[in-house]
Amino acid sequence: MKNMARPLFDVFLDIADAAAAASLPHFRTVLSVSNKLAEGFDPVTEADTATERAIRALIESEFPEDGILGEEFGMVRADAPYRWVIDPIDGTRAFISGLPVWGTLVGRLDRGKAVAGMMAQPFTGEVFIADGTRAERIWRGVSAPLKASGCKRLSEAKLFTTSPHLFQGELRKRFDALETQVRLFRYGTDCYAFAMVAAGFADLVIDPGLKPYDIVGLIPLIEQAGGVVATLAGGPPEEGGDIIAAATPELLNAAMAVMKG
Amino acid sequence: MKNMARPLFDVFLDIADAAAAASLPHFRTVLSVSNKLAEGFDPVTEADTATERAIRALIESEFPEDGILGEEFGMVRADAPYRWVIDPIDGTRAFISGLPVWGTLVGRLDRGKAVAGMMAQPFTGEVFIADGTRAERIWRGVSAPLKASGCKRLSEAKLFTTSPHLFQGELRKRFDALETQVRLFRYGTDCYAFAMVAAGFADLVIDPGLKPYDIVGLIPLIEQAGGVVATLAGGPPEEGGDIIAAATPELLNAAMAVMKG
Repeated sequence: MKNMARPLFDVFLDIADAAAAASLPHFRTVLSVSNKLAEGFDPVTEADTATERAIRALIESEFPEDGILGEEFGMVRADAPYRWVIDPIDGTRAFISGLPVWGTLVGRLDRGKAVAGMMAQPFTGEVFIADGTRAERIWRGVSAPLKASGCKRLSEAKLFTTSPHLFQGELRKRFDALETQVRLFRYGTDCYAFAMVAAGFADLVIDPGLKPYDIVGLIPLIEQAGGVVATLAGGPPEEGGDIIAAATPELLNAAMAVMKG
Repeated sequence: MKNMARPLFDVFLDIADAAAAASLPHFRTVLSVSNKLAEGFDPVTEADTATERAIRALIESEFPEDGILGEEFGMVRADAPYRWVIDPIDGTRAFISGLPVWGTLVGRLDRGKAVAGMMAQPFTGEVFIADGTRAERIWRGVSAPLKASGCKRLSEAKLFTTSPHLFQGELRKRFDALETQVRLFRYGTDCYAFAMVAAGFADLVIDPGLKPYDIVGLIPLIEQAGGVVATLAGGPPEEGGDIIAAATPELLNAAMAVMKG
């Protein structure tokens, strides 16, 4: 088989290149934005569709038997043992606001478990890859290992979330309480925060209401860097939900205790 | 005089290079962080001091008669008609968290009015410069003019702030009200949000309690791109305070009306 000849790491590098070529020409331009949700603001850009098409074409070529789920174009071969999950532009609000904290997320599931993943940020030129063998970030041609911080205590933790407004009711109160117990908290990060946990610069991320494509590509980065990813409800994070990622199991448990009341 | 021979734009490019050389080796490394404020978290890094030293040396060489105010090393020649204002690393929380939305800010005052300024983000490799003649952003060797969006209505505006927690009491209530009237709001941006107003990707930024060095370098970028910068209290933004920047005077007035109740 064609894919047996190439390391998965190299395939992810190709995916990052293809995604950058499709997305970057649309970044920092005036975009035609349509709203997917009548009640909210959920921009879909030409970049989203062009990028997902480019990634799907590459995966179809390399792994024709694998399933593919993408944010824009849905699922093919849902029963395949290996399935790819694509978010072409995670952080579309950042994207349309010119901020370089959006990313292209691609993950590979082996019977439902995320075993390999990638985040690429083409404006900074950085790529994060974990393929089951190597977990690295690459920028300007230099690689560094992905390694979570080892932080175990809330009082020493840097906590990130996309926006506190995404927490509803009791969950918001608990998140507010969590903020008072950490060293530093920060908003507005989307996928970038998870990559920073994998790289060891952030310690804890909680983002409620994520879809599978928001998180599958990131799980291998964090887990293969020594961190942990879970859901507040206890289910597998590959299925999305209220996601919590931490540098260590101890930190995860401490944050869980606050978030579950 | 030496400085008469060189366009100010080129001096800013040199400053950006010197700042990148001083700051970037400290980014994405484990930093020695000391706390300036006993009660809060205000990291001072080696990057801060090294970067300000590099910028001061360059300004002293090019403009020996000008005054200089920097976040780390205070003021020299406070009575000079031209004074430079330096924030070596604006967004130190972003810096220590690995996020590429911090920046080096340098502005030049002419008798108290900000007439030229620069923001540089060396990890993305982007520089924003406005020298009174040219207002441009430069990335990977390509220049684009700085041009504010022209947005006049709150309902169409993208609003940014660093964190809603920075608004106290009545101001927080008014900011919360403002959020409900805009198209999109976003947190966690520091100086980057102001640069995005200058570049036309964001429309409105409100950040309370800024120091002069947090804003002086940014005012020329926004004003020379067609935008406006003011304080909620009505004083000159060069002196810091509760800063509001907008793509147009109309948008500024609409936001002011909400924030002043």
